[in-house]
Amino acid sequence: MLQNDLLLRTLRKEKVERPPVWLMRQAGRILPQYREVRASVDGFISLVTNPKLAAEVTIQPVDELNVDAAIIFSDILVIPEAMGLPYEMIPGKGPFFPKTIQGASDVADLVYGDEAAQRLGYVFEAIKETKKGLQNRVPLIGFSGAPWTLMSYMLEGQGSKTFSKAKAFLYRHPVEAEMLLDKLTETIIAYLKLKIAAGVDVVQVFDSWSGVLDQDIYRKYMIPRLRQIKEAITEVPVIFFSKGAWFALEELAAINPDAIGLDWNIPIDVARQKLGHDQVVQGNLDPCKLYATPEEVKNYTLKMLEGFGPNHIANLGHGVYPDTQLDTVKSFVNTVKGYKY
Amino acid sequence: MLQNDLLLRTLRKEKVERPPVWLMRQAGRILPQYREVRASVDGFISLVTNPKLAAEVTIQPVDELNVDAAIIFSDILVIPEAMGLPYEMIPGKGPFFPKTIQGASDVADLVYGDEAAQRLGYVFEAIKETKKGLQNRVPLIGFSGAPWTLMSYMLEGQGSKTFSKAKAFLYRHPVEAEMLLDKLTETIIAYLKLKIAAGVDVVQVFDSWSGVLDQDIYRKYMIPRLRQIKEAITEVPVIFFSKGAWFALEELAAINPDAIGLDWNIPIDVARQKLGHDQVVQGNLDPCKLYATPEEVKNYTLKMLEGFGPNHIANLGHGVYPDTQLDTVKSFVNTVKGYKY
Repeated sequence: MLQNDLLLRTLRKEKVERPPVWLMRQAGRILPQYREVRASVDGFISLVTNPKLAAEVTIQPVDELNVDAAIIFSDILVIPEAMGLPYEMIPGKGPFFPKTIQGASDVADLVYGDEAAQRLGYVFEAIKETKKGLQNRVPLIGFSGAPWTLMSYMLEGQGSKTFSKAKAFLYRHPVEAEMLLDKLTETIIAYLKLKIAAGVDVVQVFDSWSGVLDQDIYRKYMIPRLRQIKEAITEVPVIFFSKGAWFALEELAAINPDAIGLDWNIPIDVARQKLGHDQVVQGNLDPCKLYATPEEVKNYTLKMLEGFGPNHIANLGHGVYPDTQLDTVKSFVNTVKGYKY
Repeated sequence: MLQNDLLLRTLRKEKVERPPVWLMRQAGRILPQYREVRASVDGFISLVTNPKLAAEVTIQPVDELNVDAAIIFSDILVIPEAMGLPYEMIPGKGPFFPKTIQGASDVADLVYGDEAAQRLGYVFEAIKETKKGLQNRVPLIGFSGAPWTLMSYMLEGQGSKTFSKAKAFLYRHPVEAEMLLDKLTETIIAYLKLKIAAGVDVVQVFDSWSGVLDQDIYRKYMIPRLRQIKEAITEVPVIFFSKGAWFALEELAAINPDAIGLDWNIPIDVARQKLGHDQVVQGNLDPCKLYATPEEVKNYTLKMLEGFGPNHIANLGHGVYPDTQLDTVKSFVNTVKGYKY
């Protein structure tokens, strides 16, 4: 069906000719086409909730960069919104929740599971639009935030350096924290299943703030929920990206994800030592390396490809930064596309 | 001379009866005494630059918490200030530099080395005051930011989630970046030597933002400068705390620091595996664990002490958070003080 199924073959551990390549946040401000669409609407959330435009910006990097996968343009914070905590996106500042979780009754009040997920019709519409527009050129990735990362925002109300409010909730209200994590897990599963029903070929779970936790906490509260998600999603491959959770890589691998995303902190040899060469991994060039010249980016990329060897999906170790020059992004993508195992 | 020289004996790897204990940011908002002094002055920087008051708040935790060391109340950003980039402290937001490094000429213009360090007379005065006030009860720790962390602020002008401006400078202007790092290194050494001359018994170098770098960059640019600092400071023990730089622990150890600070991300067994049992380490309880009950804090602390074994300085894995309850801080300190190897 798919004209380019390199990502899917890699996720199935088939022998492939080269690594597939895509970039986290590829549908975004690095593209002039995106900035044009973005300027035509009133705010980021208007774009997220508009299926036609969300599909358009999702497809842009496939056209412009020739990447091997599209990832649906959306935001991880649509889940808290569907559960009853709407967010705003404050320009130059980031997400903000006027209402946050303060205690047990707020957790009890949350809508969750299928009921919450059903509220996100605009995402599923965007997926259907995108699939139509892609015309089977490349696979489409759907995504969700992980329970901990979503919980963080629901407690903090915004980004944080320490996430000490969210972590304090874990220590001071462990029962309510587990209840919240469970409601989130159920919602994430329902949401991913509806995304799959709408047409995504792969899903990725972003645990963007796992790096503020320690091994004991991640092991006790988060790993079991990630396992629950993996076990529930049997329809398509699942990629886990737990940023900063180098201390939990072996435990993540034990969940048996189809791929594990890696940030740039993890030296490649350490990652392979921890995970072995059979584990499909994704990443992990520092997005800041794209501030170098296109020629230097080529060298950094080749070094990464050589380092990982097979069972690798080429990507950055985090979302591409909005002020990255397009020529270095293209150097990254084209270096991977010109590579041969 | 010192009535309590447990920290110094531990740093000399002598056999001691229990680990010494102190907390990063112990002189600060967790203490009602501090909040009182702080309320009496106009802004954080007025306190930093007032030797009498800085000495007073430095001694407060020794009186109130009975910790085994004092650490001079100051800020790592006095160095950029002395080099020509003054900072402001914006309440609820953090440090802000009205002027930042934009390019080569800004780096060339910086005052550095002894000339810059000599401008920080108020710090050396505060140290002398503190030594007088402490009356040899416990050792006094002096500190500095590490070259990379100070460079980050001088480029970014404030805290950042990604430090992509500072990192971009490394990739786009490597020559100027090295020049800046060299000037910082010279200034740090001169500054620490003047602190030692004024009376500090130990120094700690904080690399608060090392966790945003990757191994290659840390290895190439930062490790040589940390080594230079260690080799220059022969008068007193040197502790390095490179937060988030778990990927560089072995290289840090090769510099031969008297102790290595550890953040809470690093599982204790992994740290000991990487560094061995003879390396003196400092840390690493997650400051958020102090949000638990005093009884739970006791258990967390005991688990940490058992985990590290000897050659350990008990501390948190980061500065204590301002909203931490005093009873849990005391539970942490008293658990260490009641412990016997």
